[in-house]
Amino acid sequence: MTLLEKYLGSFENYLIEHSFNGEPASLYEPANYIMQLGGKRLRPVMVLMACDAFRDSYEEAMPAAMAIELFHNFTLIHDDIMDAAPLRRGNPTVHKKWGQSTAILCGDMMMIKSIIFLQNLEATISSDLLSMFNKTAIEVCEGQQMDMLFETRNDVGLTEYLTMITLKTSVLLGCSFYLGAIIGGAKREEAKAFYDFGKNLGIAFQLHDDILDAFAEDAIAFGKQVGGDILSNKKTYLLITALQDANPKQKELLEQWLSIKDYDQQEKIAIFKELFVLTGAKQKAEDAQQQFYNRALEALHTVRLSEAKKKTFHELAYGIMQRTR
Amino acid sequence: MTLLEKYLGSFENYLIEHSFNGEPASLYEPANYIMQLGGKRLRPVMVLMACDAFRDSYEEAMPAAMAIELFHNFTLIHDDIMDAAPLRRGNPTVHKKWGQSTAILCGDMMMIKSIIFLQNLEATISSDLLSMFNKTAIEVCEGQQMDMLFETRNDVGLTEYLTMITLKTSVLLGCSFYLGAIIGGAKREEAKAFYDFGKNLGIAFQLHDDILDAFAEDAIAFGKQVGGDILSNKKTYLLITALQDANPKQKELLEQWLSIKDYDQQEKIAIFKELFVLTGAKQKAEDAQQQFYNRALEALHTVRLSEAKKKTFHELAYGIMQRTR
Repeated sequence: MTLLEKYLGSFENYLIEHSFNGEPASLYEPANYIMQLGGKRLRPVMVLMACDAFRDSYEEAMPAAMAIELFHNFTLIHDDIMDAAPLRRGNPTVHKKWGQSTAILCGDMMMIKSIIFLQNLEATISSDLLSMFNKTAIEVCEGQQMDMLFETRNDVGLTEYLTMITLKTSVLLGCSFYLGAIIGGAKREEAKAFYDFGKNLGIAFQLHDDILDAFAEDAIAFGKQVGGDILSNKKTYLLITALQDANPKQKELLEQWLSIKDYDQQEKIAIFKELFVLTGAKQKAEDAQQQFYNRALEALHTVRLSEAKKKTFHELAYGIMQRTR
Repeated sequence: MTLLEKYLGSFENYLIEHSFNGEPASLYEPANYIMQLGGKRLRPVMVLMACDAFRDSYEEAMPAAMAIELFHNFTLIHDDIMDAAPLRRGNPTVHKKWGQSTAILCGDMMMIKSIIFLQNLEATISSDLLSMFNKTAIEVCEGQQMDMLFETRNDVGLTEYLTMITLKTSVLLGCSFYLGAIIGGAKREEAKAFYDFGKNLGIAFQLHDDILDAFAEDAIAFGKQVGGDILSNKKTYLLITALQDANPKQKELLEQWLSIKDYDQQEKIAIFKELFVLTGAKQKAEDAQQQFYNRALEALHTVRLSEAKKKTFHELAYGIMQRTR
C-alpha cells in the first residue's frame, strides 16, 4: 500500500465513523449519500499528507480533511442545482433524488458542519485555519459566479479565465495543503509555499481537464462525454485561445459553429478539435499546463523537507498530470 | 430617542459602512439589496442591547450584530427560493430579480461572511461565540427542513410544532442575546439566561404571529395577507389545536375545507376563524403565547442587572407582544 492509499483508506474510515445521524433524517441522509459517492478524495488526502510531512502523523488533521471534503461536496450539491445536472459520479444528483429545497438546505447544513469540524482543532491554530478556510470559501463562490457569468459572454479573455479557474478550483487545493501543513506544525511561510504548490497544481489540473474534455482517447476512462465542453460552447482555455489566434477564415468557421443550434454532434466535435490543433490552441494549453505544473514544483522546492518526504507530493502531482480522466 | 432607536440607528450606519463591494459585482449586489430592504433589525438590536447592558458600550458587538443579520438574510434568500416567494418586504425577492443560481450563491456567500464577521471579534471569546453560532445555524436548517416536511403531513402534533418554531425562529433570537452578553463581558450562566429569555420570547413571538395571521384587524398594518396561513392549510398552533380539540362535527368541517381546492377565499377564512374560536384553539394559542412570554421574563429575572438596565429588555419584549404586525 502506498502512502497515498493509506491516507485515502484512513479518510474513508473516518468518513464512515462520522456519517450524520441527526434529525430530521431527510436533511442528513442526502449529505451521507453524496459524501459516500466516492471520488478521488484529492482534497482530504492533500490535508493529511501535508500534516504527515511535518509531524509524522496525520490523525490530528482528520477534522480538517473532513471540513474540506464537506465544503467541496456542499459546492457540488449547489453547483448541480445551478447546472440542472441530473447525474453526479454516475448517480442521481441530490436535487434530482430529494428535490431542490432539500438540496439547498442540505448544502447549507454541510457548509456549517465544515466550520464545526474546523473548530474541533486546537484553539491556537484554529483561528488561522478558519481565516484561510473562509477566505477560500468566499473565493470559491466568486469563481462559481464568474463561471456562470461567462456562459452568456462572448468576450472572455485568457486572464480572467485563469482567474476564474483559480478561484473556482485551485484555491481549495492550496487551502487543503495549507491546513494540513499548519496542523502538522509547519511555519506559516512553509504552509504558504504548500498553498502555492496546491494552487498552481490546481490550475494545471483544470487546464489538463480542459484538454482531456476535447482530446481524451478513451471516453469510458474519462468518465464523462468527450467533447461536452465543445457541445456546450464552454469558454475553456482551448476555445478562448483558438478564437484569439485563429486566422479570419478559422475564426469565421468557429463563430459559425458556435451560433448554430442544429448540428451533428460528432461533426462539431471533430471540427473544433481540428481547429484547436490548427490554431495552436492545443499546444498553448499544453504549454500553459506545463508552466503551472513547473510553478507548483518550484513552490514545493522551497519547502525544507527531506527528498524522501517530498516524494509523495511529487507522486501526487505526477499522478494528476498523467491521469487520463 | 429611545435606547432601542439608538441601537437601530447605529446598526443601520454600520450596515451602510460595511456594504459589500467585492467582485464579481453581480454576486455582492443582491446581498446589499436584501440587507438594505430594512425590516425591524430585531436580531442585531438584541445583540447590541445585551452587550450594552453589561459593558455600557456596544460598538464592540457590531461585527456580531452584522453576522447575525447576514445569517438571517441568507436564510431569507434561500427560504424564498424554497417557497417560490415573489415578494420580500414588498420588493421582488433576490431569486426573482437576479435568478435562482445567483440567489443560491449569494446566500452561500453571506453565510460565509457571517462567520468572517464573527472572527473579527477578540480571539478569547470568538471560539465560544462561534460554537453557539454554528450550533444555532444547524438548528435553523433543521427547523426549516421540519417546516417543509410538515407541508405534506397531516399528523403534525403540538410538541413537534413547538420544536419546529423553536429551531426555525427562536434559537436565533436566543443566540443574538447570548453573543451580545458574552461580548459585553457577561458570565456564561448570565449569557445562558439571556439565551433562554430570547428563545422563549421567540416562541411567544411566533405564536403571536400565528394568531395575527388569522385575527389581525388591520391587513395593511399586518403587512401580509390576513388569512394567508389558512388559505395555504399551514399547520399552525391554531390549526393543530383546532383539529385536536374539535368535536366530530367541527372536525369534519375542518377536514372538508382542508381538502377542497376550489372555494371562496373569504368564506374559508371566516369559517376557520370561527372554528378557531369555537374549538378554543384561539384561547389556547393566546395562553401558550402568554406562558412562553412569562418564561422569557422569568429567565430575564435571574440575571443580575439593575432594574434600570432591564427596562430596555422589558420594553423590547412588550413591544414584540403588543405589535399588530
